[in-house]
Amino acid sequence: MMVQKKTSPKKFGKKPVRAGSRSTKGVLRYVPLGGFEEIGRNMMFLEYEDEIIIIDAGIQFPEEETPGIDYIIPNTSYLESKKENIKALIITHGHYDHIGAIPYLLDKIGNPVIYATRLTKEIILKRQEDFPLSPKPVFQMVAGGETKQISKNFAITFFDVVHNIPDGVGMIIRTPIGNVVHPGEFKFDYDHDGKPRGLEIWEQVGKEGVHTLMLDSTGAEVPGYALSERIVEKELEKLFKAAKGRILVGTFASLVDRVSEIVKIAEKIGRKVAISGFSMKSNLDIAQRLGYVKFQKGTIIPLDEIHKHKDDKLLILCTGAQGESNASLMRIATGEHKQIKIKPGDSVALSSSVVPGNERSVQNLKDNLARQGALVYHHKMLDIHSSGHAPQEELKTVMKLIKPRFFLPIHGYYFMRWRNARLAQEELNLKPEQTILPDNGVVVEMTKEKVEVTDEQLPAYYVMVDGLGVGDVGEVVLRDRRTLAQEGMLVIITTISKQSGRILKNPDIISRGFIYLKENQDLLDDIRRKIRGILGKSPKGQSIDADYAKTLIRDQIGQFLYNKTQRRPMVLPVIIEV
Amino acid sequence: MMVQKKTSPKKFGKKPVRAGSRSTKGVLRYVPLGGFEEIGRNMMFLEYEDEIIIIDAGIQFPEEETPGIDYIIPNTSYLESKKENIKALIITHGHYDHIGAIPYLLDKIGNPVIYATRLTKEIILKRQEDFPLSPKPVFQMVAGGETKQISKNFAITFFDVVHNIPDGVGMIIRTPIGNVVHPGEFKFDYDHDGKPRGLEIWEQVGKEGVHTLMLDSTGAEVPGYALSERIVEKELEKLFKAAKGRILVGTFASLVDRVSEIVKIAEKIGRKVAISGFSMKSNLDIAQRLGYVKFQKGTIIPLDEIHKHKDDKLLILCTGAQGESNASLMRIATGEHKQIKIKPGDSVALSSSVVPGNERSVQNLKDNLARQGALVYHHKMLDIHSSGHAPQEELKTVMKLIKPRFFLPIHGYYFMRWRNARLAQEELNLKPEQTILPDNGVVVEMTKEKVEVTDEQLPAYYVMVDGLGVGDVGEVVLRDRRTLAQEGMLVIITTISKQSGRILKNPDIISRGFIYLKENQDLLDDIRRKIRGILGKSPKGQSIDADYAKTLIRDQIGQFLYNKTQRRPMVLPVIIEV
Repeated sequence: MMVQKKTSPKKFGKKPVRAGSRSTKGVLRYVPLGGFEEIGRNMMFLEYEDEIIIIDAGIQFPEEETPGIDYIIPNTSYLESKKENIKALIITHGHYDHIGAIPYLLDKIGNPVIYATRLTKEIILKRQEDFPLSPKPVFQMVAGGETKQISKNFAITFFDVVHNIPDGVGMIIRTPIGNVVHPGEFKFDYDHDGKPRGLEIWEQVGKEGVHTLMLDSTGAEVPGYALSERIVEKELEKLFKAAKGRILVGTFASLVDRVSEIVKIAEKIGRKVAISGFSMKSNLDIAQRLGYVKFQKGTIIPLDEIHKHKDDKLLILCTGAQGESNASLMRIATGEHKQIKIKPGDSVALSSSVVPGNERSVQNLKDNLARQGALVYHHKMLDIHSSGHAPQEELKTVMKLIKPRFFLPIHGYYFMRWRNARLAQEELNLKPEQTILPDNGVVVEMTKEKVEVTDEQLPAYYVMVDGLGVGDVGEVVLRDRRTLAQEGMLVIITTISKQSGRILKNPDIISRGFIYLKENQDLLDDIRRKIRGILGKSPKGQSIDADYAKTLIRDQIGQFLYNKTQRRPMVLPVIIEV
Repeated sequence: MMVQKKTSPKKFGKKPVRAGSRSTKGVLRYVPLGGFEEIGRNMMFLEYEDEIIIIDAGIQFPEEETPGIDYIIPNTSYLESKKENIKALIITHGHYDHIGAIPYLLDKIGNPVIYATRLTKEIILKRQEDFPLSPKPVFQMVAGGETKQISKNFAITFFDVVHNIPDGVGMIIRTPIGNVVHPGEFKFDYDHDGKPRGLEIWEQVGKEGVHTLMLDSTGAEVPGYALSERIVEKELEKLFKAAKGRILVGTFASLVDRVSEIVKIAEKIGRKVAISGFSMKSNLDIAQRLGYVKFQKGTIIPLDEIHKHKDDKLLILCTGAQGESNASLMRIATGEHKQIKIKPGDSVALSSSVVPGNERSVQNLKDNLARQGALVYHHKMLDIHSSGHAPQEELKTVMKLIKPRFFLPIHGYYFMRWRNARLAQEELNLKPEQTILPDNGVVVEMTKEKVEVTDEQLPAYYVMVDGLGVGDVGEVVLRDRRTLAQEGMLVIITTISKQSGRILKNPDIISRGFIYLKENQDLLDDIRRKIRGILGKSPKGQSIDADYAKTLIRDQIGQFLYNKTQRRPMVLPVIIEV
């Protein structure tokens, strides 16, 4: 049984296990490279003999274990070694956890053709502008209903799915061992009577005969059906109508559908819309330009013209509903935004569910806004149920319409995938061995008759982006950062004579993050005395072994400090011999 | 308008504003010392001329801004200066956010009489055992229905409230300016028909005529009514009945009511109960000894006897449903628990809502358990609605039964208190100036006619406990810890000749948490070259100013590293003159 400790060695370890050379003729190999032990960093591939197709290439946002990191990208070591076999990079939709790693990886994996829908393509191109050194991507445009012959062994039929960004697609991947279905990320769309729309697409897919169904597990812990966007719209409209002053709405830049709904409500109630947040503006521009959303002329006004409109004729859309420190709403709340200051009578609605880990920042944000007199609205319950990911009942409906022989829960922590697998076992009467739960990097082998999790493990450890460096921050550096954060450090510099071994001056002690040394002179004196004791033990006139002395200082001062303070700062001894 | 930045200077600042000597004769002064800008660290006091009564003395758990800290306790500087006036420390219930700071503060505030109910008293005494240097507390026992004359100006009538620990009390504080009501922390108790029980107590309180009502705001953002514990019980019973192997239940040690409910269900379905977790066991022992909970003889078995019972006759209660690294359930999940290892067929239920900030740890915990074959149950939705804190509809009911002239929302972040104030404005037709929103440390003055938030600010900045130190970690140390965590650090040691000012040896560079230097030899060489450049500029033969040189190194190497890596490690230059 695999037991995972709080800090998983797998995330950082470097020794993949290879099972040796088993025959892979006639076998479809499936490997998730990321997104199976976390939310984000989504990337997987299918390999059939000398052909590989990749699905998605996303980033993951840093976690508590990875302080100071900008983001984490999938590990492509295996793909790099086989780049001539890569026939396609297929992108399901334009969210950063599915496209964000493209500029970092494109070159490494040989710049394969990217299959994407129109909107997705434009979002990828927009991001590419920030990475002038990344190669120019080559696209093959796709759309729901189309079938593309990717290579000798792979053909894909795309179908439209509803997510919270337009132009998402699912796919029937036609392979020599059978049809593998990957619906991307989706939720149901409900009509005004609360009936799900478009179920016939799923039925259609099921009729093709499905060997393996992959299904997003992000919502697998959430009971029931998703809340219809119609209900969210109605709630927002009610709120907006009641507002007397300006309305500010904070949400994710990537929730293009929600953003355009809000613009439409604004039109309905006669308010102009200004957008604060670069990514939100550019996403909406692209969607508008391509015709995915349509607004009346003049609805959207430049941010620096808001003073020309009355407060009750204005709605400002901003990024930053998660309390991100640099996003627009946070800068407004802290008074650092150039054009917008909160004033009493403003109504602020946070319209996005809180990402786990961001709860305190969001609380801070709400506090700040409320302190300045804004009426803050945060429909927590509403938002939990209006995420972009199908919850249990929707997942079950899809399973039953598609009726696969094998079930492979994708995306999400182990427990979410496990929950999804349990749903499939219950709904489809599948045996546990028909529900497949590989971890990141684990090779799954599929034949016409069976699907098997092998013991072959490809490299899937974290590749971290920190500033300009990609992959140069490893576990050692992170462990040090965590230790420094907890207890701080102490550098002890002792200058000794090369000839006599004697200490030449009072040891220098620098400390950061431990205790405030200026106020703890006694402790400093004690440390210096102890060092003299440790180094004084070597016979005079005999050269001291610096490494041995450093070990002694590290251990004994460390223990001394622990006894005195019950803290374990990092002790870094330096011996300067002159 | 006060704008609070992400790191609030108020939390760490040391300069309270005093409004000068206004007359306080005939004025009741109210000050929250903690718990008004956070969850936890609850402490407040009332002062009438030369008499002070304190309510609660809790700890707060550390937050992201306070890495490495054990906990945060209330600031009692003001109380210490007036300790001869302190007539009582009154404790509402036995949770650590209300009693946890007692051993740290008792001595400082002159060991006043502690007013507490029986169970609360025993829990305080139990904790006191860990602090042999803290003075022996002096208790005055109280119970619902009793009235105590605390001092000349204060009398208190206690009344029973339902929380998730037994023996919680609320109080009518009878003061010269009128009755101030503080109901402690509570939720409604529902009968089997779903009707709230015991509303007559609130009605009774209202009939006394209430000047100011204080009301817990923790649940003020949660719509609706709380879920009856009956429903939670039913769900747990259903789950337990379906379990085929062992049952493990993880919950908070402090949720004494939930814990004893679970033991009772175990009795009903014929399972023995073992308890893993010191604090849970000792809380339950105390409650049992005092007769608050009653179990059949033989239901509870020692942990080392679990092997004597069949799997389907066993239920193990453990601490650690929050993924706390040292708690029992986490040690079980990671295989570090001595007596208990997970085996396939075990059912594990997490029965406590997730504390904000713990989401990822809990996810990890569930992953670990599920990987080992346990059936994991986590009723998120159930738990959100079964917290110990009255949600909106219950708060509204209490407000309407008590009909206070002034409303003072207590406990919780500003936004929660603000939300609570809005509820009162709507339900009781109060004007905004009748709903009082002071921050920590702010003095509120109450007279018969009015309640006023003054501009007097008492010290309320964080007092942090870290290892053996109380209050010795300040903002400077914490800021360093945060910086070190984000970007690491670099110590540069240059040895120069006192006489010639020349560099005597190649500068020593130590780095931690920045990049792995062994793999970045070029960067090291560049840094050394730059240092030689910086120090070489001083005219030869002339002694260099060490402080100036250090500033140059810090700035120029810092900038150089940023240009090269876009990271800003802490640069610590040391110059050794020999």
